Amino acid sequence: MDDSDFDTKSRIIELLDVRGKIAFDYAKKVIYHQMSDHTERTATSIACANIAFIKYWGNRDSALRLPVNGSLSMNLDGLFTRTTVSFQNSLGFDELIINGHEVMGKGLERVSAILDIVRQNAGLDIKAQVVSENNFPTGAGIASSAAAFSALALASTKAAGLDWPEFAVSRLARLGSGSASRSIPAGFVEWKMGSGDEDSYAVSIAPPEHWDLVDCVAIVSAGHKETGSTEGHALAPTSPLQAARVVDGPRRLEICRRAILERDFDSLASIIEHDSDMMHAVMMTSQPALFYWKPATLAVMGSVREWRYSGLPVAYTIDAGPNVHVICLSESASTIVELLKALPGVENVLIAKVGPAARLEP
Amino acid sequence: MDDSDFDTKSRIIELLDVRGKIAFDYAKKVIYHQMSDHTERTATSIACANIAFIKYWGNRDSALRLPVNGSLSMNLDGLFTRTTVSFQNSLGFDELIINGHEVMGKGLERVSAILDIVRQNAGLDIKAQVVSENNFPTGAGIASSAAAFSALALASTKAAGLDWPEFAVSRLARLGSGSASRSIPAGFVEWKMGSGDEDSYAVSIAPPEHWDLVDCVAIVSAGHKETGSTEGHALAPTSPLQAARVVDGPRRLEICRRAILERDFDSLASIIEHDSDMMHAVMMTSQPALFYWKPATLAVMGSVREWRYSGLPVAYTIDAGPNVHVICLSESASTIVELLKALPGVENVLIAKVGPAARLEP
Repeated sequence: MDDSDFDTKSRIIELLDVRGKIAFDYAKKVIYHQMSDHTERTATSIACANIAFIKYWGNRDSALRLPVNGSLSMNLDGLFTRTTVSFQNSLGFDELIINGHEVMGKGLERVSAILDIVRQNAGLDIKAQVVSENNFPTGAGIASSAAAFSALALASTKAAGLDWPEFAVSRLARLGSGSASRSIPAGFVEWKMGSGDEDSYAVSIAPPEHWDLVDCVAIVSAGHKETGSTEGHALAPTSPLQAARVVDGPRRLEICRRAILERDFDSLASIIEHDSDMMHAVMMTSQPALFYWKPATLAVMGSVREWRYSGLPVAYTIDAGPNVHVICLSESASTIVELLKALPGVENVLIAKVGPAARLEP
Repeated sequence: MDDSDFDTKSRIIELLDVRGKIAFDYAKKVIYHQMSDHTERTATSIACANIAFIKYWGNRDSALRLPVNGSLSMNLDGLFTRTTVSFQNSLGFDELIINGHEVMGKGLERVSAILDIVRQNAGLDIKAQVVSENNFPTGAGIASSAAAFSALALASTKAAGLDWPEFAVSRLARLGSGSASRSIPAGFVEWKMGSGDEDSYAVSIAPPEHWDLVDCVAIVSAGHKETGSTEGHALAPTSPLQAARVVDGPRRLEICRRAILERDFDSLASIIEHDSDMMHAVMMTSQPALFYWKPATLAVMGSVREWRYSGLPVAYTIDAGPNVHVICLSESASTIVELLKALPGVENVLIAKVGPAARLEP
């Protein structure tokens, strides 16, 4: 429906009486308003997943998702969520469609909570449709919620006409999923734990081109994981080891930050494996215990260590799922992929270089 | 050679001259002395392996093997070491024969250190031959050193003519291998960390007949483990999680002690899995990391948890090796053994009831 359609109808109605003319003008105004609404209140964004080198596990404030320790990650180029947010007068409630399926319940509530913050800041009082597509398996230890909530934060603020700086979008993404804060800035990213809501957001410490790392994600099980991260974070304090892990956090962050800035692979390798093992140590000593590792996970971990001891620059890190993120230099990526594919229990290998910041689609 | 042989020879020599008689008497005296030596200075003992429910990992004094926390175990009936110690004037050095093979180097030194303490206490200045046989695979996470050093402590003190009370033998065994202290008393055994060498030994908290538990040991790899326990204990303080594990030790000990005394299987199950997971959490966050679990280990752990969640009273615990000790009530042992044997990666299942104290063979 474009202007010429209106003009045609307009000419027909001009042949009618004055009340008809008044009624048509009103209808035209409403329709134009809705159309302009639609045009201006829609935005599409793309945001990468990220893999944490120093992990986020446990909140000091669950509602605000304020973490007990800072974390550090690499964006994963090519593993992304594309999200379109449209604020529409015609909607009676927020709608969420992920990979073609409408999502209700807790998933929708979590998205609406972010949209509510956006509406409040933009002075908007209309509902939104959120259409989201991942190009990688969800809920299997690749940070799908990180990509999803960072894309949502960027698209929804833009659609609502807010022109927020990067740090503010990162902070908003954090409220949806802590690790999503890290998918907003580019390349190698540190999420500062901050002193509160205001200053707990992520910043880039180095751009993607700083270091040619590759994440070869060994998929050992694409099924949905048993315990989601939100529930997992809540269990972190039940491990008698969590406090010690947290106290030691700044040491690990410092080693990892330095390793990235100095492109020191050996140092990176040992600290990311150590940090990943520490998070899983806490997980499996929680009450109840959380075991994300499958037998094939352990087999890949063992092989990666062996390859490194035999001289190949390679290291593993594992999020809250069974898949193994195998980090290497781009020059050895094809070798690593072949080695991984030959391991029993490895169903597939995804490959990601260092990814860019979350961005809007024109 | 018995007395009648001597008498025959004696009569022949009496036909010879006086010097001959004198020479014969001297020789006879020496031979008699050596024979009586041999008879009195030999002892054979049998000692069980044990499986720790609350684990020993880390020493506050490595030389004295004074642990950082108390531990609690069950003796494993039928999985034993038989050791014969013979102090012999004719030996120029201590001899150690394990499963038919002579052992030199570090292994012999560790045994000689125990023999030295025995010699010092008995006022003996002669070397010993130690002949030891295990009836289970050594160095694969079944406490072969526990059985070995407890058998050695008991046989060597007896052979040297020392009649030590149980606690003193337990303390001596501790100096050879910490967990060996627990294989001296009967049944369910607690090793008190003590305030020093004098009061760090193990005592029985309940006899074998107190509770009809069975340990079904799922052997997933009978190969020799990569890092022995002595080296492992030395690495414990390098884990940022060890101090927290140690601080939490008395809580776990108390829950486990009570579960045993009250025959509360559910409580036992959750605390022994938790304690085992905590020890392995420390191991794999040590620097360098110690991974004793194999993929099949993790598979058995997962299956055991599933069986328990579906109502079967069963729990796992794992020592410094890949094999999984699956603890159950004797009434479900045959079911558990069948289930375990059906799991991929399980090579064999050993079965042990609650074992007796270390004992001397007549």
